[in-house]
Amino acid sequence: MTGDGTREHVRSTALRLFRERGYEATTMRLIATQAGVATGNAYYYFPSKGHLVQELYREVSLEHVARVAQPLAAGGDLGSRLRAVLHAALDAFGEYHAFGSEFVTVAIRPGSAASPFSEASRQTRELSTGILHDVVRGAAPPVPSALRTDLPELLWLVELGVLLFWVNDTSPGQRRTRALVDGAVPILARLVRLSRLPVLRGTVEETLGLLRSVRG
Amino acid sequence: MTGDGTREHVRSTALRLFRERGYEATTMRLIATQAGVATGNAYYYFPSKGHLVQELYREVSLEHVARVAQPLAAGGDLGSRLRAVLHAALDAFGEYHAFGSEFVTVAIRPGSAASPFSEASRQTRELSTGILHDVVRGAAPPVPSALRTDLPELLWLVELGVLLFWVNDTSPGQRRTRALVDGAVPILARLVRLSRLPVLRGTVEETLGLLRSVRG
Repeated sequence: MTGDGTREHVRSTALRLFRERGYEATTMRLIATQAGVATGNAYYYFPSKGHLVQELYREVSLEHVARVAQPLAAGGDLGSRLRAVLHAALDAFGEYHAFGSEFVTVAIRPGSAASPFSEASRQTRELSTGILHDVVRGAAPPVPSALRTDLPELLWLVELGVLLFWVNDTSPGQRRTRALVDGAVPILARLVRLSRLPVLRGTVEETLGLLRSVRG
Repeated sequence: MTGDGTREHVRSTALRLFRERGYEATTMRLIATQAGVATGNAYYYFPSKGHLVQELYREVSLEHVARVAQPLAAGGDLGSRLRAVLHAALDAFGEYHAFGSEFVTVAIRPGSAASPFSEASRQTRELSTGILHDVVRGAAPPVPSALRTDLPELLWLVELGVLLFWVNDTSPGQRRTRALVDGAVPILARLVRLSRLPVLRGTVEETLGLLRSVRG
Protein backbone atom coordinates (compact mmCIF):
# COMPACT_ATOMS: atom_id res chain seq x y z
CA MET A 1 0.00 0.00 0.00
CA THR A 2 1.08 3.59 -0.56
CA GLY A 3 1.32 5.95 2.44
CA ASP A 4 -2.04 7.49 1.57
CA GLY A 5 -3.57 4.05 1.19
CA THR A 6 -2.25 2.95 4.58
CA ARG A 7 -3.46 6.13 6.25
CA GLU A 8 -6.95 5.72 4.81
CA HIS A 9 -7.00 2.03 5.79
CA VAL A 10 -6.02 2.81 9.42
CA ARG A 11 -8.59 5.61 9.48
CA SER A 12 -11.52 3.54 8.23
CA THR A 13 -10.58 0.62 10.49
CA ALA A 14 -10.59 2.95 13.49
CA LEU A 15 -13.97 4.46 12.60
CA ARG A 16 -15.50 1.01 12.22
CA LEU A 17 -14.08 -0.10 15.58
CA PHE A 18 -15.35 3.07 17.27
CA ARG A 19 -18.84 2.31 15.98
CA GLU A 20 -18.67 -1.40 16.84
CA ARG A 21 -16.86 -1.38 20.19
CA GLY A 22 -16.96 2.18 21.46
CA TYR A 23 -14.13 4.50 22.26
CA GLU A 24 -12.58 2.91 25.37
CA ALA A 25 -12.23 -0.61 23.95
CA THR A 26 -10.70 0.64 20.71
CA THR A 27 -7.01 0.93 21.55
CA MET A 28 -4.35 2.05 19.08
CA ARG A 29 -2.92 -1.47 19.30
CA LEU A 30 -6.27 -3.00 18.32
CA ILE A 31 -6.69 -0.54 15.46
CA ALA A 32 -3.21 -1.42 14.17
CA THR A 33 -3.78 -5.18 14.51
CA GLN A 34 -7.10 -5.05 12.69
CA ALA A 35 -5.67 -2.82 9.98
CA GLY A 36 -2.71 -5.21 9.62
CA VAL A 37 -0.03 -2.60 10.29
CA ALA A 38 2.56 -2.16 13.06
CA THR A 39 1.33 -0.09 16.02
CA GLY A 40 4.16 2.39 15.43
CA ASN A 41 2.93 2.80 11.87
CA ALA A 42 -0.59 3.63 13.08
CA TYR A 43 0.87 6.21 15.46
CA TYR A 44 2.86 7.68 12.59
CA TYR A 45 -0.36 8.68 10.84
CA PHE A 46 -2.46 9.42 13.95
CA PRO A 47 -0.51 10.53 17.03
CA SER A 48 -3.48 9.79 19.34
CA LYS A 49 -6.99 8.39 19.45
CA GLY A 50 -8.17 12.00 19.70
CA HIS A 51 -6.86 12.49 16.16
CA LEU A 52 -8.94 9.54 14.99
CA VAL A 53 -12.03 10.95 16.69
CA GLN A 54 -11.26 14.15 14.82
CA GLU A 55 -11.46 12.06 11.60
CA LEU A 56 -14.90 10.88 12.63
CA TYR A 57 -15.92 14.50 13.22
CA ARG A 58 -14.61 15.32 9.74
CA GLU A 59 -16.50 12.45 8.11
CA VAL A 60 -19.76 13.50 9.74
CA SER A 61 -19.17 17.11 8.68
CA LEU A 62 -18.63 16.08 5.05
CA GLU A 63 -21.88 14.12 5.25
CA HIS A 64 -23.54 17.24 6.69
CA VAL A 65 -22.28 19.37 3.79
CA ALA A 66 -23.64 16.84 1.29
CA ARG A 67 -27.04 16.75 2.98
CA VAL A 68 -27.57 20.53 3.03
CA ALA A 69 -26.49 21.27 -0.54
CA GLN A 70 -29.97 20.87 -2.00
CA PRO A 71 -32.04 22.65 0.68
CA LEU A 72 -29.60 25.58 0.74
CA ALA A 73 -29.64 25.92 -3.05
CA ALA A 74 -33.44 26.17 -2.86
CA GLY A 75 -33.38 29.61 -1.17
CA GLY A 76 -35.81 30.37 1.64
CA ASP A 77 -35.80 32.61 4.68
CA LEU A 78 -33.30 32.44 7.52
CA GLY A 79 -35.53 30.27 9.69
CA SER A 80 -36.28 27.61 7.10
CA ARG A 81 -32.61 27.44 6.07
CA LEU A 82 -31.37 27.14 9.64
CA ARG A 83 -34.01 24.54 10.44
CA ALA A 84 -32.92 22.39 7.46
CA VAL A 85 -29.26 22.68 8.47
CA LEU A 86 -29.82 21.72 12.12
CA HIS A 87 -31.97 18.72 11.22
CA ALA A 88 -29.37 17.65 8.64
CA ALA A 89 -26.69 17.82 11.35
CA LEU A 90 -28.76 15.48 13.52
CA ASP A 91 -29.25 13.18 10.52
CA ALA A 92 -25.51 13.16 9.76
CA PHE A 93 -24.59 12.39 13.38
CA GLY A 94 -27.49 9.93 13.65
CA GLU A 95 -25.74 6.57 13.58
CA TYR A 96 -23.14 7.81 16.05
CA HIS A 97 -25.62 8.57 18.83
CA ALA A 98 -24.41 5.69 20.99
CA PHE A 99 -20.85 6.88 20.43
CA GLY A 100 -21.95 10.49 20.92
CA SER A 101 -21.19 10.75 24.61
CA GLU A 102 -17.71 9.35 24.12
CA PHE A 103 -17.20 11.72 21.23
CA VAL A 104 -18.17 14.71 23.36
CA THR A 105 -16.14 13.35 26.26
CA VAL A 106 -13.05 13.28 24.06
CA ALA A 107 -13.78 16.47 22.15
CA ILE A 108 -14.47 18.55 25.23
CA ARG A 109 -11.08 17.97 26.84
CA PRO A 110 -9.03 21.15 26.64
CA GLY A 111 -6.22 20.60 24.15
CA SER A 112 -7.98 17.67 22.48
CA ALA A 113 -7.37 17.35 18.73
CA ALA A 114 -11.04 16.42 18.36
CA SER A 115 -12.27 19.65 19.97
CA PRO A 116 -14.28 21.68 17.43
CA PHE A 117 -12.11 24.64 18.53
CA SER A 118 -8.72 22.95 18.04
CA GLU A 119 -6.11 23.76 15.41
CA ALA A 120 -6.36 20.13 14.20
CA SER A 121 -10.09 20.59 13.61
CA ARG A 122 -9.65 23.76 11.62
CA GLN A 123 -10.58 22.26 8.24
CA THR A 124 -13.59 20.47 9.72
CA ARG A 125 -14.65 23.62 11.56
CA GLU A 126 -14.46 25.52 8.28
CA LEU A 127 -16.77 22.96 6.69
CA SER A 128 -19.31 23.48 9.47
CA THR A 129 -19.07 27.24 9.71
CA GLY A 130 -19.13 27.37 5.89
CA ILE A 131 -22.61 25.85 5.96
CA LEU A 132 -23.80 28.54 8.35
CA HIS A 133 -22.23 31.29 6.26
CA ASP A 134 -24.27 29.91 3.37
CA VAL A 135 -27.42 29.90 5.53
CA VAL A 136 -26.96 33.61 6.25
CA ARG A 137 -25.71 34.69 2.80
CA GLY A 138 -28.55 33.05 0.89
CA ALA A 139 -31.43 34.09 3.16
CA ALA A 140 -34.31 36.07 1.65
CA PRO A 141 -35.27 38.52 3.07
CA PRO A 142 -31.64 39.34 3.84
CA VAL A 143 -30.21 39.27 7.34
CA PRO A 144 -29.76 42.78 8.85
CA SER A 145 -26.34 44.04 7.80
CA ALA A 146 -25.16 44.67 11.39
CA LEU A 147 -25.44 40.93 12.06
CA ARG A 148 -24.31 39.51 8.76
CA THR A 149 -20.62 39.12 9.68
CA ASP A 150 -21.02 37.55 13.11
CA LEU A 151 -24.26 35.60 12.79
CA PRO A 152 -22.75 32.51 11.10
CA GLU A 153 -20.39 31.92 14.02
CA LEU A 154 -23.19 32.53 16.52
CA LEU A 155 -25.36 29.99 14.72
CA TRP A 156 -22.48 27.52 14.74
CA LEU A 157 -22.36 27.86 18.55
CA VAL A 158 -26.12 27.22 18.54
CA GLU A 159 -25.46 24.07 16.49
CA LEU A 160 -22.84 22.88 19.00
CA GLY A 161 -25.33 23.52 21.80
CA VAL A 162 -27.97 21.46 19.97
CA LEU A 163 -25.45 18.61 19.59
CA LEU A 164 -24.60 18.77 23.31
CA PHE A 165 -28.31 18.47 24.06
CA TRP A 166 -28.66 15.62 21.53
CA VAL A 167 -25.87 13.58 23.11
CA ASN A 168 -27.78 13.63 26.39
CA ASP A 169 -31.16 13.04 24.77
CA THR A 170 -32.44 9.58 25.68
CA SER A 171 -35.89 10.04 24.12
CA PRO A 172 -36.76 7.56 21.29
CA GLY A 173 -35.12 8.74 18.05
CA GLN A 174 -33.92 11.79 20.01
CA ARG A 175 -37.33 13.35 19.50
CA ARG A 176 -36.75 15.98 22.16
CA THR A 177 -33.80 17.38 20.23
CA ARG A 178 -35.94 17.61 17.07
CA ALA A 179 -38.58 19.47 19.08
CA LEU A 180 -35.90 21.78 20.47
CA VAL A 181 -34.76 22.65 16.94
CA ASP A 182 -38.31 23.23 15.72
CA GLY A 183 -39.07 25.42 18.72
CA ALA A 184 -35.82 27.37 18.85
CA VAL A 185 -35.48 28.25 15.15
CA PRO A 186 -38.53 30.56 14.92
CA ILE A 187 -37.42 32.33 18.10
CA LEU A 188 -33.90 32.86 16.75
CA ALA A 189 -35.24 34.06 13.40
CA ARG A 190 -37.54 36.51 15.18
CA LEU A 191 -34.71 37.83 17.34
CA VAL A 192 -32.65 38.45 14.20
CA ARG A 193 -35.53 40.50 12.74
CA LEU A 194 -36.03 42.38 16.02
CA SER A 195 -32.33 43.23 16.20
CA ARG A 196 -33.08 46.15 13.87
CA LEU A 197 -35.24 47.90 16.48
CA PRO A 198 -33.54 50.99 17.90
CA VAL A 199 -34.26 49.82 21.46
CA LEU A 200 -32.30 46.58 20.85
CA ARG A 201 -29.51 47.93 18.69
CA GLY A 202 -27.25 48.80 21.64
CA THR A 203 -27.66 45.34 23.16
CA VAL A 204 -26.88 43.70 19.82
CA GLU A 205 -23.73 45.77 19.39
CA GLU A 206 -22.61 45.00 22.92
CA THR A 207 -23.24 41.27 22.51
CA LEU A 208 -21.25 41.11 19.28
CA GLY A 209 -18.43 43.10 20.87
CA LEU A 210 -18.31 40.69 23.80
CA LEU A 211 -18.21 37.65 21.50
CA ARG A 212 -15.36 39.14 19.49
CA SER A 213 -13.39 39.90 22.64
CA VAL A 214 -13.76 36.49 24.32
CA ARG A 215 -12.93 34.64 21.13
CA GLY A 216 -9.35 35.51 22.16
CA MET B 1 -14.87 3.84 62.58
CA THR B 2 -18.64 4.17 62.27
CA GLY B 3 -20.25 3.79 58.84
CA ASP B 4 -20.56 7.55 58.50
CA GLY B 5 -16.94 7.99 59.56
CA THR B 6 -15.75 5.45 56.98
CA ARG B 7 -17.83 7.04 54.26
CA GLU B 8 -16.43 10.49 55.04
CA HIS B 9 -12.88 9.11 55.18
CA VAL B 10 -13.22 7.40 51.77
CA ARG B 11 -14.77 10.58 50.38
CA SER B 12 -12.05 12.95 51.57
CA THR B 13 -9.31 10.54 50.49
CA ALA B 14 -10.81 10.39 47.00
CA LEU B 15 -11.08 14.18 46.70
CA ARG B 16 -7.47 14.59 47.78
CA LEU B 17 -6.31 11.97 45.25
CA PHE B 18 -8.37 13.61 42.48
CA ARG B 19 -6.63 16.93 43.21
CA GLU B 20 -3.15 15.37 43.51
CA ARG B 21 -3.19 12.74 40.75
CA GLY B 22 -6.12 13.57 38.51
CA TYR B 23 -9.11 11.47 37.65
CA GLU B 24 -7.62 8.68 35.53
CA ALA B 25 -4.84 7.70 37.94
CA THR B 26 -7.20 7.65 40.92
CA THR B 27 -8.68 4.16 40.79
CA MET B 28 -11.20 2.81 43.29
CA ARG B 29 -8.50 0.38 44.42
CA LEU B 30 -6.04 3.22 45.11
CA ILE B 31 -8.70 5.18 46.99
CA ALA B 32 -9.46 2.14 49.15
CA THR B 33 -5.78 1.41 49.81
CA GLN B 34 -5.01 4.99 50.80
CA ALA B 35 -8.13 5.16 52.96
CA GLY B 36 -7.14 1.86 54.60
CA VAL B 37 -10.37 0.04 53.73
CA ALA B 38 -11.19 -2.98 51.55
CA THR B 39 -12.00 -2.09 47.92
CA GLY B 40 -15.42 -3.71 48.32
CA ASN B 41 -16.07 -1.43 51.27
CA ALA B 42 -15.24 1.67 49.21
CA TYR B 43 -17.64 0.44 46.51
CA TYR B 44 -20.29 -0.06 49.18
CA TYR B 45 -20.34 3.69 49.87
CA PHE B 46 -19.61 4.90 46.33
CA PRO B 47 -20.71 2.56 43.51
CA SER B 48 -18.46 4.35 40.97
CA LYS B 49 -15.86 7.06 40.57
CA GLY B 50 -18.65 9.17 39.06
CA HIS B 51 -20.30 9.18 42.48
CA LEU B 52 -17.09 10.49 44.01
CA VAL B 53 -16.85 13.22 41.39
CA GLN B 54 -20.40 14.06 42.35
CA GLU B 55 -19.12 14.53 45.92
CA LEU B 56 -16.54 16.97 44.63
CA TYR B 57 -19.30 18.85 42.81
CA ARG B 58 -21.24 18.95 46.07
CA GLU B 59 -18.26 20.23 48.06
CA VAL B 60 -17.66 23.04 45.57
CA SER B 61 -21.36 23.94 45.63
CA LEU B 62 -21.36 24.20 49.42
CA GLU B 63 -18.33 26.46 49.15
CA HIS B 64 -20.23 28.52 46.55
CA VAL B 65 -23.22 28.89 48.90
CA ALA B 66 -20.93 30.07 51.71
CA ARG B 67 -19.22 32.60 49.45
CA VAL B 68 -22.42 34.25 48.17
CA ALA B 69 -24.22 34.57 51.54
CA GLN B 70 -22.85 38.01 52.31
CA PRO B 71 -23.13 39.64 48.84
CA LEU B 72 -26.68 38.34 48.42
CA ALA B 73 -27.75 39.60 51.86
CA ALA B 74 -26.51 43.05 50.84
CA GLY B 75 -29.30 43.54 48.26
CA GLY B 76 -28.49 45.16 44.92
CA ASP B 77 -29.91 44.96 41.43
CA LEU B 78 -30.14 41.81 39.33
CA GLY B 79 -26.88 42.50 37.48
CA SER B 80 -24.73 43.13 40.54
CA ARG B 81 -26.16 40.07 42.31
CA LEU B 82 -25.63 37.80 39.32
CA ARG B 83 -22.12 39.13 38.79
CA ALA B 84 -21.21 38.36 42.43
CA VAL B 85 -22.64 34.84 42.14
CA LEU B 86 -20.81 33.97 38.91
CA HIS B 87 -17.48 35.26 40.18
CA ALA B 88 -18.02 33.33 43.43
CA ALA B 89 -18.62 30.15 41.40
CA LEU B 90 -15.29 30.67 39.64
CA ASP B 91 -13.63 31.28 43.02
CA ALA B 92 -15.17 28.12 44.49
CA PHE B 93 -14.09 25.99 41.52
CA GLY B 94 -10.71 27.77 41.40
CA GLU B 95 -8.36 25.14 42.81
CA TYR B 96 -9.97 22.46 40.66
CA HIS B 97 -9.15 24.11 37.34
CA ALA B 98 -6.54 21.49 36.42
CA PHE B 99 -9.09 18.81 37.29
CA GLY B 100 -11.83 20.78 35.54
CA SER B 101 -11.60 19.08 32.17
CA GLU B 102 -11.77 15.64 33.76
CA PHE B 103 -14.67 16.78 35.87
CA VAL B 104 -16.58 17.96 32.81
CA THR B 105 -15.53 14.84 30.93
CA VAL B 106 -17.09 12.68 33.61
CA ALA B 107 -20.08 14.89 34.31
CA ILE B 108 -21.05 15.24 30.66
CA ARG B 109 -21.47 11.51 30.05
CA PRO B 110 -25.15 10.71 29.72
CA GLY B 111 -26.23 8.76 32.78
CA SER B 112 -23.27 9.94 34.85
CA ALA B 113 -23.98 10.38 38.56
CA ALA B 114 -21.81 13.52 38.41
CA SER B 115 -23.95 15.16 35.74
CA PRO B 116 -25.53 18.35 37.09
CA PHE B 117 -28.80 17.00 35.64
CA SER B 118 -28.65 13.53 37.28
CA GLU B 119 -30.90 12.22 40.04
CA ALA B 120 -27.78 11.67 42.17
CA SER B 121 -26.92 15.36 41.82
CA ARG B 122 -30.35 16.54 42.85
CA GLN B 123 -29.34 17.92 46.26
CA THR B 124 -26.30 19.64 44.80
CA ARG B 125 -28.35 21.03 41.95
CA GLU B 126 -30.82 22.42 44.49
CA LEU B 127 -27.96 24.18 46.26
CA SER B 128 -26.90 25.82 42.98
CA THR B 129 -30.34 26.71 41.70
CA GLY B 130 -31.22 27.91 45.22
CA ILE B 131 -28.51 30.56 44.90
CA LEU B 132 -30.02 31.77 41.64
CA HIS B 133 -33.52 31.82 43.10
CA ASP B 134 -32.09 34.08 45.79
CA VAL B 135 -30.45 36.28 43.14
CA VAL B 136 -33.83 36.82 41.47
CA ARG B 137 -35.96 37.04 44.62
CA GLY B 138 -33.81 39.66 46.31
CA ALA B 139 -33.20 41.91 43.28
CA ALA B 140 -34.22 45.57 43.53
CA PRO B 141 -35.77 46.80 41.32
CA PRO B 142 -37.74 43.54 41.10
CA VAL B 143 -37.50 41.17 38.11
CA PRO B 144 -40.54 41.42 35.76
CA SER B 145 -43.19 39.04 37.07
CA ALA B 146 -43.47 37.10 33.78
CA LEU B 147 -39.84 36.00 34.19
CA ARG B 148 -39.65 35.51 37.93
CA THR B 149 -40.50 31.79 37.92
CA ASP B 150 -38.21 30.64 35.11
CA LEU B 151 -35.31 33.06 35.32
CA PRO B 152 -33.44 31.23 38.13
CA GLU B 153 -33.20 28.07 36.05
CA LEU B 154 -32.19 30.04 32.95
CA LEU B 155 -29.45 31.75 34.95
CA TRP B 156 -28.30 28.37 36.23
CA LEU B 157 -27.87 27.25 32.61
CA VAL B 158 -25.87 30.44 32.04
CA GLU B 159 -23.69 29.48 35.02
CA LEU B 160 -23.10 25.99 33.55
CA GLY B 161 -22.16 27.63 30.23
CA VAL B 162 -19.68 29.90 32.00
CA LEU B 163 -18.14 26.86 33.72
CA LEU B 164 -17.84 25.05 30.38
CA PHE B 165 -16.01 28.09 29.00
CA TRP B 166 -13.82 28.27 32.14
CA VAL B 167 -12.72 24.65 31.82
CA ASN B 168 -11.37 25.40 28.37
CA ASP B 169 -9.90 28.77 29.35
CA THR B 170 -6.11 28.59 29.24
CA SER B 171 -5.53 32.31 29.87
CA PRO B 172 -3.56 33.15 33.05
CA GLY B 173 -5.88 32.98 36.06
CA GLN B 174 -8.70 32.26 33.59
CA ARG B 175 -8.91 35.99 32.92
CA ARG B 176 -10.99 35.49 29.79
CA THR B 177 -13.77 33.83 31.78
CA ARG B 178 -13.79 36.75 34.24
CA ALA B 179 -14.08 39.13 31.28
CA LEU B 180 -16.89 37.02 29.83
CA VAL B 181 -18.82 37.30 33.12
CA ASP B 182 -18.25 41.06 33.35
CA GLY B 183 -19.35 41.53 29.75
CA ALA B 184 -22.31 39.16 29.73
CA VAL B 185 -23.97 40.23 33.00
CA PRO B 186 -24.97 43.77 31.93
CA ILE B 187 -26.33 42.37 28.66
CA LEU B 188 -28.42 39.74 30.47
CA ALA B 189 -29.68 42.32 32.97
CA ARG B 190 -30.64 44.64 30.12
CA LEU B 191 -32.48 41.83 28.28
CA VAL B 192 -34.45 41.10 31.45
CA ARG B 193 -35.51 44.76 31.63
CA LEU B 194 -36.35 44.83 27.90
CA SER B 195 -38.50 41.69 28.24
CA ARG B 196 -41.31 43.97 29.41
CA LEU B 197 -41.54 45.69 26.01
CA PRO B 198 -44.70 44.69 24.11
CA VAL B 199 -42.62 43.92 21.00
CA LEU B 200 -40.59 41.33 22.92
CA ARG B 201 -43.29 39.87 25.10
CA GLY B 202 -44.33 37.22 22.57
CA THR B 203 -40.74 36.08 22.08
CA VAL B 204 -40.20 35.85 25.83
CA GLU B 205 -43.36 33.77 26.27
CA GLU B 206 -42.37 31.47 23.42
CA THR B 207 -38.85 31.01 24.77
CA LEU B 208 -40.11 30.12 28.24
CA GLY B 209 -42.63 27.70 26.75
CA LEU B 210 -39.91 25.98 24.75
CA LEU B 211 -37.67 25.64 27.81
CA ARG B 212 -40.48 24.12 29.83
CA SER B 213 -41.28 21.64 27.06
CA VAL B 214 -37.71 20.41 26.42
CA ARG B 215 -37.00 20.05 30.12
CA GLY B 216 -38.94 16.82 29.62
